[in-house]
Amino acid sequence: MCRRSGYSNSDFKYFEVETQCVSTLQSRKSLNPENRGSDVFYIPITMLISLYDTTLRDGNQARFINLSLNDKIRIARLLDEFGVDYIEGGWPNESNPTEEEFFREIRRENIANSKIAAFGSTKRPRIKPEQDLILQSLVKSDAPVKTIFGKSWDIHVTGVIKTELEENLDMISSSIEFLKKYSEEVIYDAEHFFDGYKANPKYALETIKRAQSSGAQYIVLCDTNGGTLPWEIEKIIAEVNCDKIGIHCHNDAGMAVASSLAAVKAGAAQVQGVVNGYGERCGNANLITIAADLCLKMGYELKCKNNMNRLRYFSLAIDEVANVQSDVRAPFVGETAFAHKGGAHIDGVLKISKSFEHIAPELVGNSREFVTSDQAGGALIAEKLSKILPNIDKKSPVVAELLKCVKEKENRGFAFDTAEGSFELLARRHLGFYKECFKTLGYRVIEEMGEDGAHVSEASVKLCIDGKIIHEVCEGDGPVNALDLALRKALVERFPSIETVKLNDYKVRVLGSKVGTDASVRVWITFGDSKESWNTAGVSTNIIEASWLALLDGIHYKIMREEQ
Amino acid sequence: MCRRSGYSNSDFKYFEVETQCVSTLQSRKSLNPENRGSDVFYIPITMLISLYDTTLRDGNQARFINLSLNDKIRIARLLDEFGVDYIEGGWPNESNPTEEEFFREIRRENIANSKIAAFGSTKRPRIKPEQDLILQSLVKSDAPVKTIFGKSWDIHVTGVIKTELEENLDMISSSIEFLKKYSEEVIYDAEHFFDGYKANPKYALETIKRAQSSGAQYIVLCDTNGGTLPWEIEKIIAEVNCDKIGIHCHNDAGMAVASSLAAVKAGAAQVQGVVNGYGERCGNANLITIAADLCLKMGYELKCKNNMNRLRYFSLAIDEVANVQSDVRAPFVGETAFAHKGGAHIDGVLKISKSFEHIAPELVGNSREFVTSDQAGGALIAEKLSKILPNIDKKSPVVAELLKCVKEKENRGFAFDTAEGSFELLARRHLGFYKECFKTLGYRVIEEMGEDGAHVSEASVKLCIDGKIIHEVCEGDGPVNALDLALRKALVERFPSIETVKLNDYKVRVLGSKVGTDASVRVWITFGDSKESWNTAGVSTNIIEASWLALLDGIHYKIMREEQ
Repeated sequence: MCRRSGYSNSDFKYFEVETQCVSTLQSRKSLNPENRGSDVFYIPITMLISLYDTTLRDGNQARFINLSLNDKIRIARLLDEFGVDYIEGGWPNESNPTEEEFFREIRRENIANSKIAAFGSTKRPRIKPEQDLILQSLVKSDAPVKTIFGKSWDIHVTGVIKTELEENLDMISSSIEFLKKYSEEVIYDAEHFFDGYKANPKYALETIKRAQSSGAQYIVLCDTNGGTLPWEIEKIIAEVNCDKIGIHCHNDAGMAVASSLAAVKAGAAQVQGVVNGYGERCGNANLITIAADLCLKMGYELKCKNNMNRLRYFSLAIDEVANVQSDVRAPFVGETAFAHKGGAHIDGVLKISKSFEHIAPELVGNSREFVTSDQAGGALIAEKLSKILPNIDKKSPVVAELLKCVKEKENRGFAFDTAEGSFELLARRHLGFYKECFKTLGYRVIEEMGEDGAHVSEASVKLCIDGKIIHEVCEGDGPVNALDLALRKALVERFPSIETVKLNDYKVRVLGSKVGTDASVRVWITFGDSKESWNTAGVSTNIIEASWLALLDGIHYKIMREEQ
Repeated sequence: MCRRSGYSNSDFKYFEVETQCVSTLQSRKSLNPENRGSDVFYIPITMLISLYDTTLRDGNQARFINLSLNDKIRIARLLDEFGVDYIEGGWPNESNPTEEEFFREIRRENIANSKIAAFGSTKRPRIKPEQDLILQSLVKSDAPVKTIFGKSWDIHVTGVIKTELEENLDMISSSIEFLKKYSEEVIYDAEHFFDGYKANPKYALETIKRAQSSGAQYIVLCDTNGGTLPWEIEKIIAEVNCDKIGIHCHNDAGMAVASSLAAVKAGAAQVQGVVNGYGERCGNANLITIAADLCLKMGYELKCKNNMNRLRYFSLAIDEVANVQSDVRAPFVGETAFAHKGGAHIDGVLKISKSFEHIAPELVGNSREFVTSDQAGGALIAEKLSKILPNIDKKSPVVAELLKCVKEKENRGFAFDTAEGSFELLARRHLGFYKECFKTLGYRVIEEMGEDGAHVSEASVKLCIDGKIIHEVCEGDGPVNALDLALRKALVERFPSIETVKLNDYKVRVLGSKVGTDASVRVWITFGDSKESWNTAGVSTNIIEASWLALLDGIHYKIMREEQ
């Protein structure tokens, strides 16, 4: 393991330049591996760090997160698009069919950049690997990578799995050797490694030595209870002699990112983490922050480096699928991460941008914002627009007007980032490329529960199509379903193609500012037909109206596509 | 400055014991000050670290925070009760009367533990200190402590305040000397110190040397744009030769806590931070996390150490005043900081508590929680039950029946871990401890949008109370709000206490398995009155019904509490 070199004041300057640009780094291999000075400043070096995402497994352990199969597939697609090296899909086992299903479904997806890993543990004591149910489920998952955890801490061997220390060593090596036969790679997670090392360093080291000699691709040192401090992690890793070390941290002391990066500084080649830091208790190490720090501030190579300028998009899109309110002050990607409020700060930024911005916001797809003069997102929207209508003149006054309209809607709670269907519709309507071919005259929903407990949801819709008034009524499974059915019934004769449209997902987010039942809500719907899928959004203090707006956009989008 | 000592494996064990208990530490002074080995593990040492809170000034720079005078006074009382060493009240100046008023008001308060500091900057170039408006306002504030910031970075001297480097040095020393005449203490904040040091170490060091020789109590090194990495901070501080160093970090790289603690490790004696990490952009260093880490994990002395077991209370109380939603996964104090969900983890904690808990939750006034989810077993539900009804016989058949019922509801999508109100109600009803005092005969919601685009949401509710049929109708801002209003209107005469109930939060989650608008939804509502807050949930494929069920549980819970 080669590490950092010495530094001088000129290195500082060199590094400062490099924090703004990651590509032209000198090879890490050219450094003398013996050069293990105690200096802590990096000079830029190209060492490739592998990112291992466990959002779908450890992230899903968060108290407020419950990912469905469909959510997991969608997150996996986003992770693959971003370019993490590994996607841990879950712990396949008989008692939880969703996990098993994931591994079946994911094989049908076109996952191009990431390897899929299934998670489990070493075999139980005193049986053969092939008899162990967990190892069997891992093999059955057919995931190319299997990750298993084992015990490093002596009291856990004797007190939790209740076996001898020697037997645990055998469990580690025989489980890895068994899985190797059915896998491209086996990764070993050394549970409680740091606590184990503090209690009994010789034994803890012996466990990972066994894992390495059995052929594990990475030996991942886990700070399972999140209590180890970054300088302890750095120190201990420096004392471990393994080829490929990984690190897995939790945020219980508020330093999971620092601990992960300290491990890399000490030689770790893989970082395990979770998007946006979801996870049990205080969460796992935040992989979004880590990717940005490694790539933009420490000069490491990452497979996803060319997607760093879409980091904010990936962070928000995964929050949306997980139905988690985005942290406005998240480092790099938060809504306020580059928002300047104080007058002196705004002045300082205008004079010397580095004053209050440690990196250029565009490097992570974010934008500078002055809280007094709201101008965020303009460039982002203009970019989106040029994708839909490449020949449009961005300087024309209609575009400026469109941007104003988008801004106004976003201030009210729209999020066009994740509702591209609604955005395209808005843009085409605004610029005269789509003329609505029907008009809503009104709708009514009646929702009734009678003394026998029976429910009735009835919706009627009144439209004007080609000058003709159409009035249709339907019952449904809830008010939004009834509205959806009535809308289609009114339209299907004139627009038969809408019969092929499916509603694939429906989500509701209660927006921040106000509380109670009259809070603003954003409804977000994913539609699909045989060719594509599209998202729309509706915002209102009234959940029925918000749903209606999103439904209407979804149907208009389909009609617009048919016309093209 | 004395620092850490060497370590051995027996120190590890000693330290491990000490992380659970802070009182019996040996004196830091007894250590040989020359013992500056490169080892990074602490042995417990009593060095007193001063905590400087800037919630009222830097925290208030957060985009979503706007503290009134009254809020500031309430937060100052809480900070004093907790025992921070310094409370920075704001930047007194003519253009912002709230700030000036704060310093007048706070003198009437009985602030016992903390010193009040007023914030400002060094004087403008080429005038005398007594002519400078900012220094005059500081004197006028009559705060015992004055904190001023000055420039450390050469390009800021020439590019932002546009003066000579020598003049800036004079501005620092003359401003401090002037303020000393009117203050118990003057604290100097070296703005952009780390960037300044990287660019021109000689000049940056010269600025703080001047501040020290002019009599500043602490020289606080500020990472103003939050971009310096913890190991850079540690390294640079080790090269600074000052008596009393302070540290002031921002979270732009996601490591403000680690950076602050690395500074302490390198010898800093004061940490500046903000409660719960509020602040501009990504926030300031979180003083709550820092206090816990310093005191419980690194063995430092803090003035507030005897209040550590109320840390969660202070964190939540200040969120409440600042009107900020508490971060459920905040280290140490978050609602889920000690919540265990995975079955294997729960099993591990029950066997060896350190498995998944780095400290005992009671040390920070938090508590362990086993999340009642489909991953957790009956033992956990029984434990929750015994909190509500301590004398219940867990083996009785009614308890077994209750568990079956909970399980069945969770399979349908209920999540009792986040709806403890609904769980308690279910348990008490089931075991005969709560008899419903009204009956729902039916409800109806009409939701209408007419040709003019106008919306009407009307709800009627029919109840039977004490044999009498009550039928009430209300309009509202959306169907759920209308239902809420109608339900209260029907009940308030018989149960007047429900008037004090507030709806504090309303959330909707679309559940996994089915998709489209007829998917199952879970509605969560948080209610509160002057005494407590409670959560309820409702699940249905119909969002109106799910909301109704959660509303009804919330009201029943209040009536049940009144009866007790």
